[in-house]
Amino acid sequence: MSATPTDLRGREADAMARARELGASVLGTTSANPAVGAVILASDGTPVGEGATAPPGGPHAEVAALAQAGERARGGTAVVTLEPCAHTGRTGPCADALIAGGVSRVVVAVPEPTELAGGGAERLRAAGIEVEVGVERGAAEEGALAAWLTGVREQRPFVIWKAAATLDGRVAAADGTSRWITGEEARAAVHRLRATCDAVVVGSGTALTDDPQLTVRDAEGRLAGRQPLRVVVDRRGRLPGTARLLDQAAPTHVSRAGTPADLLAELFDRDVRRILLEGGPTLAAAFLRAGLVDEVLVHLAPTLLGAGSSLVGDLGISTMADALSLRIVDLIPMGGDVQIRLVPTRHTGGDQHADGGS
Amino acid sequence: MSATPTDLRGREADAMARARELGASVLGTTSANPAVGAVILASDGTPVGEGATAPPGGPHAEVAALAQAGERARGGTAVVTLEPCAHTGRTGPCADALIAGGVSRVVVAVPEPTELAGGGAERLRAAGIEVEVGVERGAAEEGALAAWLTGVREQRPFVIWKAAATLDGRVAAADGTSRWITGEEARAAVHRLRATCDAVVVGSGTALTDDPQLTVRDAEGRLAGRQPLRVVVDRRGRLPGTARLLDQAAPTHVSRAGTPADLLAELFDRDVRRILLEGGPTLAAAFLRAGLVDEVLVHLAPTLLGAGSSLVGDLGISTMADALSLRIVDLIPMGGDVQIRLVPTRHTGGDQHADGGS
Ligand SMILES: NC(=O)c1ccc[n+]([C@@H]2O[C@H](COP(=O)([O-])OP(=O)(O)OC[C@H]3O[C@@H](n4cnc5c(N)ncnc54)[C@H](OP(=O)(O)O)[C@@H]3O)[C@@H](O)[C@H]2O)c1
Ligand SMILES: NC(=O)c1ccc[n+]([C@@H]2O[C@H](COP(=O)([O-])OP(=O)(O)OC[C@H]3O[C@@H](n4cnc5c(N)ncnc54)[C@H](OP(=O)(O)O)[C@@H]3O)[C@@H](O)[C@H]2O)c1
Repeated sequence: MSATPTDLRGREADAMARARELGASVLGTTSANPAVGAVILASDGTPVGEGATAPPGGPHAEVAALAQAGERARGGTAVVTLEPCAHTGRTGPCADALIAGGVSRVVVAVPEPTELAGGGAERLRAAGIEVEVGVERGAAEEGALAAWLTGVREQRPFVIWKAAATLDGRVAAADGTSRWITGEEARAAVHRLRATCDAVVVGSGTALTDDPQLTVRDAEGRLAGRQPLRVVVDRRGRLPGTARLLDQAAPTHVSRAGTPADLLAELFDRDVRRILLEGGPTLAAAFLRAGLVDEVLVHLAPTLLGAGSSLVGDLGISTMADALSLRIVDLIPMGGDVQIRLVPTRHTGGDQHADGGS
Repeated sequence: MSATPTDLRGREADAMARARELGASVLGTTSANPAVGAVILASDGTPVGEGATAPPGGPHAEVAALAQAGERARGGTAVVTLEPCAHTGRTGPCADALIAGGVSRVVVAVPEPTELAGGGAERLRAAGIEVEVGVERGAAEEGALAAWLTGVREQRPFVIWKAAATLDGRVAAADGTSRWITGEEARAAVHRLRATCDAVVVGSGTALTDDPQLTVRDAEGRLAGRQPLRVVVDRRGRLPGTARLLDQAAPTHVSRAGTPADLLAELFDRDVRRILLEGGPTLAAAFLRAGLVDEVLVHLAPTLLGAGSSLVGDLGISTMADALSLRIVDLIPMGGDVQIRLVPTRHTGGDQHADGGS
């Protein structure tokens, strides 16, 4: 029984969605390599192999998927989130692996943006394989590949600024206490988010006030196997040797970088591609002023304090028309709290109206 | 063709939902009377009349609905959000009107809580009418009757505190500008909300800084026919005679009440049952500290200021465990902004955990 062309297209769309999921599942473990996902369909459209990028030095997504598929890949289709590479790095070229695997068609979401690894589609076509590039490209670019693509384009890591705040925008009470603003669900989400990042960054202020651990832990407090790099920006060397950030639970980098851009350059050189900025209002303001925040996650708790530090420090903005503007991407209730995800937009200035006021 | 008993129950449930809508549609126009809705079903379950409380002195909901139904009410059912009154005020008892109208069944959501107007169900039953009280009572109590019920129980108006804030909880920029934090959709919603209230309240601080008009206007800036009472709490008599709040667009009450409780008592005596508190952080804090806020509406804009007044002034809270806690009722996207509706909950203290911190 052979599948109709329409059936096969449907199978490929399903496979691409699954490939994106596979890529997302390894986010935080692959840098400086991209988190790619791949699915192999047999010639009748049946999924016969899937894979995602292994940690650096390990097999790429296509190779893992081909290994699973074996002979069933012959005459089949490979569905991948990123164009297979054509160069030999720590692993051989994925394009060659696909040719050797015998697939007759390759469906790609995002074209390879680097010179170095480019040429994969060309090499496949030269081997007589049908290649389609750009399929559901936007979804793949906004998903697990976003941070890596930012690295390629801007030579810096992608920055997610996350903060927990009360309804009145306080991130700590007047006496400095900040535990716990949000409930267990939101806090568990932060641990899952940390696991998808290469580094978690705070300023010396947070390190000194909260003495946080900044590790990835489960609900029972058990440490995850892989831990992101912990980073403290401590320009004046105020972090005491007794700080929990210096314990053995995870690697830690104490940075003296003078500016957010310097810090990002330092971390980029350490193969960091995706950063969770969990610093306090001072460091967050420095990143925002430098235009170096790519995504904002506010965990808003339904509480009021009336005093204490506000979400973000001085931005040099004195009038409403100059407010820094963002766009809400989604709102997700988390226990009694709500997560607001936003992306900065071009600064648009005030939307003043001539009518008679409030 | 006669409807089955199951059909009739379904018709009654629909009629009760419609009765609640009718009540809500006149919110803000009936005080000190409750905003009641009524639907008359003919004996076969067909809706033949509907009504809502008219402004004080005008007919009650049941009377309006009966007038519309006429002879078709005979043998039918009256569905009402509040137990029909049994006393003669500016209008005759509704119970008597229902008896005269010939209905054989009356379905009521909320029992009449006042001694004065009570006894309606009893009088109906004495006339041989079947009466069911308490049907979908919760929904009716939380809807258009909420403010009036608060008045009955606590002898004070119901208070909705509404504020527009940036993501970092600012209600004005450092230079005092607060126009516009939110976009047109959220601002239009405020005008619709004002229309459902008997009074709109600000402190002298807001009156002096913003010189607001506080009227109900449509998108083209046209004044609505009915305007809520504008109230400025100005204990030191700082409001200038040139303030827009003193123009002829709507009635205004300048109060010297020393506390929120005194202000509410003063307004209750003026038949105000539902207040929109649009004051600044100082007056909002005074109401919150006095425990006199029943509902909170925050219109959150996706912007950051980094400076300026925060949502709420000093609450006398210095540590996280003492934060004033609320519960999110719903989240409604409004243009690019989001409306967060909350109700204060009992103060629960901190939810401290023994585990190792953040
Ligand atoms: N609710 C939350 O989500 C949350 C998250 C984090 C913190 N907090 C609270 O925030 C408070 C700490 O606030 P914070 O603002 O002091 O913390 P922070 O932003 O983490 O640290 C501020 C410090 O970072 C250092 N820093 C390094 N590079 C910088 C740069 N480029 N620009 C500016 N500063 C730089 C500065 O000290 P040096 O000059 O010495 O380097 C500065 O004093 C605590 O109360 C904590 O509980 C809350
Ligand atoms: N974004 C928004 O939703 C929003 C809404 C309103 C205002 N605002 C901004 O808020 C700022 C004004 O803040 P504000 O706090 O001064 O305004 P406010 O709370 O409206 O007014 C404060 C004044 O109210 C008077 N008051 C009367 N009764 C009071 C009581 N029981 N307790 C405390 N004060 C009482 C006090 O002056 P007396 O002692 O002289 O009576 C006090 O100074 C402006 O920048 C305005 O733009 C923003």
